[in-house]
Amino acid sequence: MRGVDKNDVPSVTVPRLALYLRKLRELRARGVERVSSKDLAEMIDLNAAQIRKDFSYFGEFGTRGVGYEVPVLVDEITRCLGLDHTWNVVIVGAGLLGTALARYRGFTEQGFRLVGMFDSSASVIGARFGTGEDSRVRSVHELDEFCRRERVDIAMITVPAGEAENTVRRLGAAGVKAILNFAPLKVHAPEGVLVRQVDLSSELMSLSFYLDKEQE
Amino acid sequence: MRGVDKNDVPSVTVPRLALYLRKLRELRARGVERVSSKDLAEMIDLNAAQIRKDFSYFGEFGTRGVGYEVPVLVDEITRCLGLDHTWNVVIVGAGLLGTALARYRGFTEQGFRLVGMFDSSASVIGARFGTGEDSRVRSVHELDEFCRRERVDIAMITVPAGEAENTVRRLGAAGVKAILNFAPLKVHAPEGVLVRQVDLSSELMSLSFYLDKEQE
Repeated sequence: MRGVDKNDVPSVTVPRLALYLRKLRELRARGVERVSSKDLAEMIDLNAAQIRKDFSYFGEFGTRGVGYEVPVLVDEITRCLGLDHTWNVVIVGAGLLGTALARYRGFTEQGFRLVGMFDSSASVIGARFGTGEDSRVRSVHELDEFCRRERVDIAMITVPAGEAENTVRRLGAAGVKAILNFAPLKVHAPEGVLVRQVDLSSELMSLSFYLDKEQE
Repeated sequence: MRGVDKNDVPSVTVPRLALYLRKLRELRARGVERVSSKDLAEMIDLNAAQIRKDFSYFGEFGTRGVGYEVPVLVDEITRCLGLDHTWNVVIVGAGLLGTALARYRGFTEQGFRLVGMFDSSASVIGARFGTGEDSRVRSVHELDEFCRRERVDIAMITVPAGEAENTVRRLGAAGVKAILNFAPLKVHAPEGVLVRQVDLSSELMSLSFYLDKEQE
């Protein structure tokens, strides 16, 4: 069994890996040792051939009638996704969405450690966002120094649109390498920083497009 | 100028249309009449050739040195995305994320009308989620009848993972045609219902994948 070369894994496969991992962990927790591509396909509503192709990146080919070893796949995918170590995460913007993200169960489960939360509003600074002693919203003035000192890897930003560009630039300069942007506009990614856009109204627009097509 | 045939527009183009629309509306609001694909490309960090190709679905070819007419494009894209009429939207799950979505500025701007919000928890039912007289969280028991009566088009669900499947089934049976699922698992789409998954932890996993690749 060989380790996977990440450069072999196409970017469109990555979201599926996340999906497989969640289901496979669930199976492992229930003590399931093996799973066929067919059964897995049914569980997650995907095509079995697609699953076999995706797993072949791990050099895992399954055995007809026996299937894939669940714990092996869990380990391989975990490693491939870089989830075998902890990432330090900050949230910039402690409004409703930021607070919802801070409590989102899915994140901490996956080894994402929320180390800090920042806001510019005096009415929010100092508010508790978690159970830790240190889990209080800080002023954005502290953002740059904090990110450098705590070696922050990832930032989620939920600031108003007008502040997004500047926030991303500061985060980049402070060594943050990946940003999940929830602000409703596309921002320029500084050199060496990966910015992913979660555009909620664009998701709704996609639904609208299909609904409208249906009704034509 | 011809109307666009939506079947010509590939699904990968739709999120870009949403992006163009936002920027073009901004330009229109500033009184800008024309824009070149090159300038637009710089504004939204996309390739100019890609933009020209996307706009060709509208039969819009722009004029070299003069560019595209901004108000025309705004109208065409608005119509293509089905945003020239209002969609009735409900949110199921009035936790932090649901409440954040209810206040998300981007939605109402685009003609998505939040008509109801539902939760199963007595501590939340009756709470205000908007400014309207009727803007109070209802019990999920009312969900099915409400969706039929109010002709709800789109639902956003932020319920716990264990309730997602059942919620989607009920919404489908009550005539809801499109669902944006924020629950952290993939659900089966009932016949004739479009379900889109917004998987926040999968977004973070993608970041993790790329960060890890960088550091190898």
